[in-house]
Amino acid sequence: MQFELTDEFFERLQLAIDSKDEAFIESQLKELYPPDIAEIFNKLELEQVKFLYNYLEEQIAADVLVELEEDVREEILSSLTSKEIAEQLDNMDSDDAADVIAELPDKVQDEVLAQLEDSEQASDIVDLLNYDENTAGGLMAKELIRVHVSKTSIECVREIREQADEVENIYAIYVVDDDEKLLGLLPLKKLVISPTRSKVADIYDSKVISVKTNASAEEVANVMDKYNLVVLPVVDVLGRLVGKITIDDVVDVRREEETEDVQKMGAMEALEEPYMNTSFGQMIKKRAGWLVLLFLGETLTATAMSFFEDQITKAVILALFIPLIIASGGNSGSQASTLVIRALALGEITVRDWMKIVKKEFYTGLVIGLILGLIGFLRIALWAYFVDDYGPHWYLIGFTVGFSLVGVVLWGTLMGSLLPLFLKRFGLDPAVSSAPFVATLVDVTGLVIYFSFSMFFLKGILL
Amino acid sequence: MQFELTDEFFERLQLAIDSKDEAFIESQLKELYPPDIAEIFNKLELEQVKFLYNYLEEQIAADVLVELEEDVREEILSSLTSKEIAEQLDNMDSDDAADVIAELPDKVQDEVLAQLEDSEQASDIVDLLNYDENTAGGLMAKELIRVHVSKTSIECVREIREQADEVENIYAIYVVDDDEKLLGLLPLKKLVISPTRSKVADIYDSKVISVKTNASAEEVANVMDKYNLVVLPVVDVLGRLVGKITIDDVVDVRREEETEDVQKMGAMEALEEPYMNTSFGQMIKKRAGWLVLLFLGETLTATAMSFFEDQITKAVILALFIPLIIASGGNSGSQASTLVIRALALGEITVRDWMKIVKKEFYTGLVIGLILGLIGFLRIALWAYFVDDYGPHWYLIGFTVGFSLVGVVLWGTLMGSLLPLFLKRFGLDPAVSSAPFVATLVDVTGLVIYFSFSMFFLKGILL
Repeated sequence: MQFELTDEFFERLQLAIDSKDEAFIESQLKELYPPDIAEIFNKLELEQVKFLYNYLEEQIAADVLVELEEDVREEILSSLTSKEIAEQLDNMDSDDAADVIAELPDKVQDEVLAQLEDSEQASDIVDLLNYDENTAGGLMAKELIRVHVSKTSIECVREIREQADEVENIYAIYVVDDDEKLLGLLPLKKLVISPTRSKVADIYDSKVISVKTNASAEEVANVMDKYNLVVLPVVDVLGRLVGKITIDDVVDVRREEETEDVQKMGAMEALEEPYMNTSFGQMIKKRAGWLVLLFLGETLTATAMSFFEDQITKAVILALFIPLIIASGGNSGSQASTLVIRALALGEITVRDWMKIVKKEFYTGLVIGLILGLIGFLRIALWAYFVDDYGPHWYLIGFTVGFSLVGVVLWGTLMGSLLPLFLKRFGLDPAVSSAPFVATLVDVTGLVIYFSFSMFFLKGILL
Repeated sequence: MQFELTDEFFERLQLAIDSKDEAFIESQLKELYPPDIAEIFNKLELEQVKFLYNYLEEQIAADVLVELEEDVREEILSSLTSKEIAEQLDNMDSDDAADVIAELPDKVQDEVLAQLEDSEQASDIVDLLNYDENTAGGLMAKELIRVHVSKTSIECVREIREQADEVENIYAIYVVDDDEKLLGLLPLKKLVISPTRSKVADIYDSKVISVKTNASAEEVANVMDKYNLVVLPVVDVLGRLVGKITIDDVVDVRREEETEDVQKMGAMEALEEPYMNTSFGQMIKKRAGWLVLLFLGETLTATAMSFFEDQITKAVILALFIPLIIASGGNSGSQASTLVIRALALGEITVRDWMKIVKKEFYTGLVIGLILGLIGFLRIALWAYFVDDYGPHWYLIGFTVGFSLVGVVLWGTLMGSLLPLFLKRFGLDPAVSSAPFVATLVDVTGLVIYFSFSMFFLKGILL
């Protein structure tokens, strides 16, 4: 079953490292999968990692290296000679090897490439390094089994046998013509059940989905998602087969995208590295920008409030409910914007549905506003009776707060749902319409709504 | 390549339906993949869908049915007899068939099950319906190729050939013992390259990762993610092989989880259906609860403010900056909580790292607080000079606002980062520490901080 890294095991392992207990170390490492070993390495001291590293088989060592956190991998690599790094890269898939080599300093990159024993791997890596990492070309690996459409199934088996070491998992064989153009694919299952003398031309599947090297990572993820693909062939502008993308690479792309979205929705720029690895300078840079912007937007509330200074002077009691009113607008707006951002990201809605969304949100905002308005009125009634002295006109204050809540919640909900649609419409990322962004937009309006209702209900009485 | 549903094509297709242009319809449907057809069906009128449905081959029709949005599928199914539904289910994988049948009314379920021609499929479906949908058992399909460890590779090929119709994609063959216990797996690639007389016992891989039927969907997703698996065998408590989960099912699980997290972070309960399909009643229910709770929390600000009514009466100018101060606390808190919630969800941090996180957030909050405090002071200085009359003691008001901002931002950041850790520590979902939730918690404290600084700077002068 799966491995779970317990404290007991971790301590036992450190003890074994300290006492150089080879028997224990070797027996344990043999039981574990590369991701488990990487998980352990991520938590050990560099010296301990280096010590354990020597006990790993070549292939396992390469797999572990790929799975490690970037900073741990960097430390290990910087302690290896370029020849040792090259040996590791020879054991990796070309896409992983290219990713690892891209992290090295330029000078070391050249040295390592020159030391690679497998010249095909070297040329594959150089080729892959040319692609932008956020495109299909940057995601793909070069390892795949291709056969010419004129071959027979027995020749396919021979081809697989020859390349078995190169290509770890094989789900399908790609069928190409004289110009290396992708014609279709032959699922391994079909190969297995076909008579050995079958012609590829007769048994391959010409309905094949592929992407171009310059397709964006997001597009790749969407295509694999939609068609439930485990592997996706990549072709160049001429339709020639150049590589394949496997689903595990796309899972990472999706996760990064989601993280970026979530962070933007938290009113900040997306971090480039995991939270713990983000430097202090980066942290300030990514966070302060939006906070300053929101702060400047929010200073408008001070300006707005100065228009109502007179009203507050006459009825200080009005000031008490300001935070309550504007928070309610912000909260309802943040619900609406979150829902719309997520539904857009999932493709459940498009900008064109805006009228339907506005209608839905209008009624939702109205009902929720009425609920909060009623509670607000009751709160004031109860306090007027039992706690505070809101004066003889408490019910007018109650009306002011109650009606303001209806207005503010309705307005917040509408703004919250329209803002992401508006951003999307103009080619911007809807995820930036974060809860704080919406709240800031709604705050000034909330104040205006509140003081308008107070004039309506209290003019000539308190005002 | 991939299909894109353009307006032109959609209109052309509707025209073809209206004029019953069979040639066009058949030629187009043949070119499309089931997910494309489902995408089109989701947008057509029910009558049009029913018309097109008749032109689909049996297997394609079943695949399309699985890909449809739930409400469209429901409509189609309700227009079919139980015999017709049963025919569709016979062509589905057992997990999809179980999902579809689970959506039907109880009475129809029994009728359909009785009509299934494939009795193995019927028993598989009944079996799958017993599992909770959020467990490995609920996710798995029963279709898989299993061989006894004593067989030879040629017998494996025979087994695959027999079941080829049942199992759409085959990546590996599962090896079991006399008791049907899972011993390991034989990748299809290995089968292809091994001599035909090889014994399974000699070539299979005994290192295999599996999950129990009662493992949670989240656990399944984590395991497949960590070990980069495309398919994961499921065993019962006795270790007997009962099914397999493929990665596309897990992609859906992940997406649902992310959506739930995002919605909770937007200060609401997670919706059970896509945004557009959520009924008005559900919408209010999922959203009003949190808003009422936050509103009640926020009423504390009114209570807190009543303690400072005297100060506001003496210096109404203090009221002007209240929204600005409390919004800044909320915004910085929402950044911190978003970062921590996401890092927890990704496993980048655990509750144990709390000291490191607090340290990181303390310094970040302090620096950002100083930046905003300085801007706040400058804002007041500029307005005092050019715009408003803040009186001769404007610089003391500037100090009050500036220092309050440092305090409020620092406090907001610390609360925002600690709240999700706290929730997680006590077994609650950290994602509920939404921006509005954090803001509400911080608002009262923000007021206290603000009025404390105002007493410190302005006592004996304005107060």
